[in-house]
Amino acid sequence: MAVKMSAQELMDFMAREFPQVKNDFIVEDVRDMGVTVRMPVADRHLRPGGTVSGPSMFGLADCSIYFAVLAMIGPKGLAVTTNCSLDFMRKPEAGRDLIAECKLLKLGRVLAVGDVLIYSEGKPEPVARATMTYSIPPN
Amino acid sequence: MAVKMSAQELMDFMAREFPQVKNDFIVEDVRDMGVTVRMPVADRHLRPGGTVSGPSMFGLADCSIYFAVLAMIGPKGLAVTTNCSLDFMRKPEAGRDLIAECKLLKLGRVLAVGDVLIYSEGKPEPVARATMTYSIPPN
Amino acid sequence: MAVKMSAQELMDFMAREFPQVKNDFIVEDVRDMGVTVRMPVADRHLRPGGTVSGPSMFGLADCSIYFAVLAMIGPKGLAVTTNCSLDFMRKPEAGRDLIAECKLLKLGRVLAVGDVLIYSEGKPEPVARATMTYSIPPN
Amino acid sequence: MAVKMSAQELMDFMAREFPQVKNDFIVEDVRDMGVTVRMPVADRHLRPGGTVSGPSMFGLADCSIYFAVLAMIGPKGLAVTTNCSLDFMRKPEAGRDLIAECKLLKLGRVLAVGDVLIYSEGKPEPVARATMTYSIPPN
Repeated sequence: MAVKMSAQELMDFMAREFPQVKNDFIVEDVRDMGVTVRMPVADRHLRPGGTVSGPSMFGLADCSIYFAVLAMIGPKGLAVTTNCSLDFMRKPEAGRDLIAECKLLKLGRVLAVGDVLIYSEGKPEPVARATMTYSIPPN
Repeated sequence: MAVKMSAQELMDFMAREFPQVKNDFIVEDVRDMGVTVRMPVADRHLRPGGTVSGPSMFGLADCSIYFAVLAMIGPKGLAVTTNCSLDFMRKPEAGRDLIAECKLLKLGRVLAVGDVLIYSEGKPEPVARATMTYSIPPN
Repeated sequence: MAVKMSAQELMDFMAREFPQVKNDFIVEDVRDMGVTVRMPVADRHLRPGGTVSGPSMFGLADCSIYFAVLAMIGPKGLAVTTNCSLDFMRKPEAGRDLIAECKLLKLGRVLAVGDVLIYSEGKPEPVARATMTYSIPPN
Repeated sequence: MAVKMSAQELMDFMAREFPQVKNDFIVEDVRDMGVTVRMPVADRHLRPGGTVSGPSMFGLADCSIYFAVLAMIGPKGLAVTTNCSLDFMRKPEAGRDLIAECKLLKLGRVLAVGDVLIYSEGKPEPVARATMTYSIPPN
């Protein structure tokens, strides 16, 4: 399958449709069935001790897979998250952005499944992993 | 086991330790191995179409189970979420608060597991469910 | 919604369609959006130390939710499991049957979601919990 | 970290400790924080339509991560599965073995987390994915 949206098109779409999160995520790479997304860590993402909050990591995982789905199917419809599993494995470092490496494992007519590994930038071991299922509405 | 913290004590602890979320959640009931938590839905929780965002629901589930654990073990240590699974089953209604009904299924020495059902207030069918595991640090 | 299949009809359907597991599960109760299923624990389900194996508990959870879906939609179509999460919380006891208490949280046109708590018979605390999503094929 | 057990040592350990499954799994490769495991598909793994059953795939995922943990920590202790999430994405093909590619994402003192992708041999797209958490008992 061909990629249908560029990194810039994905970010423009997000800024238009989801203005609440428009400065939260930067799409750094778009490829066949996958994206790389950066979350510049700001004060509002932090918890005591300087660690990134769970909801912020959930949001990063969720948006990354959404970007990966949109990149393949184009800016249409309203895919919704139906299921997710997350493992929080290490404490993210406060002074570093988070980088999400996302891969679609399935892109069906009705359901898409994607995997994400989240890293503190520059560190080799993932801080979290997530799998999410998106329901893709009929056209 | 006896409940060690009241609803007010849980909210005071949260306001002190996690000031970022101090007005987000109201503990409505504390009981043996369970709590009821209200999230007054505000604009910042919403997505286009007026629905509550995924990260907001994740945050509600996460805090509810955290409250339930604290209620049983007292305001000590720093329990951290290690794993979660969520199912988003129905669209929450914009004009209604969310109510989380949380039940601890296990409260071990090292791991706690809790289940949450999230409702739009006054509706009989849950909008989401979550299970989370907390790692409880040794004293 | 009305229940469309009795406990006996569910077991007859299973014996016909899934002869491999026909003696593994006994449907003890069928109700609106829920079932109770017994797994008589036999040697083939055990692991060293006399505990019930993970695959056996997975199978019990999977079949219980399948029974609950069939009870509501009738003996048609071929629902398939698309997602599951399981927490193994306590060691099941070898000499006791397992009892699964299953509740459907959602029964949509396309997706069904069910929760299961698994107990060693006669014990108050669950040994495991599971949530599964079934994809219901169009007629 | 150095790998502490070879493929043959892992299989000998399994045959001795878990005789019920000793012919079910073949460890094909052991590497730093990962293993490849083959499940020769036999009649007892099948469901109507010739597809591999859910419990069989659960068992493959579970054993693969167990092998990967043992390979790193050696044949000691009794690690137990505490949590798993699975996505069943495609129908496995009946005439083909299943191949599990397993990677440990975390190997802590107390918890290990591993990811598995399961393939029908020779097919590029995974039929299932799983993540499991193991609790590692203190020595």
